[in-house]
Amino acid sequence: MSIKSINVRNQFKGNIVEILEGPVLSEVDVNTPAGLVTSVITTRSVKDLDLKVGDQVIAFVKSTEVSIAKL
Amino acid sequence: MSIKSINVRNQFKGNIVEILEGPVLSEVDVNTPAGLVTSVITTRSVKDLDLKVGDQVIAFVKSTEVSIAKL
Amino acid sequence: MSIKSINVRNQFKGNIVEILEGPVLSEVDVNTPAGLVTSVITTRSVKDLDLKVGDQVIAFVKSTEVSIAKL
Amino acid sequence: MSIKSINVRNQFKGNIVEILEGPVLSEVDVNTPAGLVTSVITTRSVKDLDLKVGDQVIAFVKSTEVSIAKL
Amino acid sequence: MSIKSINVRNQFKGNIVEILEGPVLSEVDVNTPAGLVTSVITTRSVKDLDLKVGDQVIAFVKSTEVSIAKL
Amino acid sequence: MSIKSINVRNQFKGNIVEILEGPVLSEVDVNTPAGLVTSVITTRSVKDLDLKVGDQVIAFVKSTEVSIAKL
Repeated sequence: MSIKSINVRNQFKGNIVEILEGPVLSEVDVNTPAGLVTSVITTRSVKDLDLKVGDQVIAFVKSTEVSIAKL
Repeated sequence: MSIKSINVRNQFKGNIVEILEGPVLSEVDVNTPAGLVTSVITTRSVKDLDLKVGDQVIAFVKSTEVSIAKL
Repeated sequence: MSIKSINVRNQFKGNIVEILEGPVLSEVDVNTPAGLVTSVITTRSVKDLDLKVGDQVIAFVKSTEVSIAKL
Repeated sequence: MSIKSINVRNQFKGNIVEILEGPVLSEVDVNTPAGLVTSVITTRSVKDLDLKVGDQVIAFVKSTEVSIAKL
Repeated sequence: MSIKSINVRNQFKGNIVEILEGPVLSEVDVNTPAGLVTSVITTRSVKDLDLKVGDQVIAFVKSTEVSIAKL
Repeated sequence: MSIKSINVRNQFKGNIVEILEGPVLSEVDVNTPAGLVTSVITTRSVKDLDLKVGDQVIAFVKSTEVSIAKL
């Protein structure tokens, strides 16, 4: 199934630089122009999507999940 | 209270370019090297932190909130 | 931009039955085989995606956001 | 402690069809009229609630966690 | 529908001290032994649950949503 | 990097009483005046922050992640 567009405003395109695989969840590290973005998804999704180091992906996050800190 | 460090791995430093204020929640748009990052936080937090357009802030998000899409 | 696939395991296809629009966030109600699914997204996303009552959409959620209750 | 009602609008009743147990987190798959719903909760919660395959449960999620994609 | 138990480990019992109602979402402030806990839920949920100042409620949150900061 | 203040309204100060370390994610249990608060963060963050039992920390959570249940 191909998706035309999603509502998620924060999308970071990049390449997977590392996958740390656990029994249930895996950490997927994506190198983006914004720096390293770390995602934790189910290991099953890593396999379903056949994610591998070097793959071009989009890391995305809902606006309601983003917090703000003042320096 | 000053915080030394937080566990959140995904931190995007930038400047606030727009604040869209609602009665309960506000949208805070931050210009970062990764592009525009949109955050939704309570309007009370906008006021507590005295956030204004131009302020330098960090937008951050927990790794468990980041999803991955394949192009 | 067309997305081939996302890691999100919980996807509910349905039609929008109501959009309750606020100044910052909007509630989008989707009629699915599982019943009514309620999503809250930014009003800007509603406009960017040009969402209207009757549109066929997918409501989706990360596995880490799903809780379990015992009856 | 018995809870009368919760604010969470998206509730999917179903039966547990699989529990994939990790050292810290576990994946709980629930068969619902909407299809398979996947939840990731702490392994301690799996034990506290004494969750087993076949149990009738409710998988639920906050509206602010639900995203929308256009087909 | 009465729920016997939920998997959510972080539960704070308290009384509602303020409800700030917006068109789509509302802020519900709960006075707990841990101090003030702020929740943002849909205004429809506020009405469905008939929440009022003074009501005894439980504010709860999934463990995967809790971050840690070092002082 | 020192952070002056964050927007997150729900902050619980306490001491770490247990760390349950998994390959990808770890559970960090914090004893607070509000009782035990359980956080799940990446094991890498546990190491980056050098978290140990006894450390004084703040557990915090966004308001949009907090649900309300009626007793």
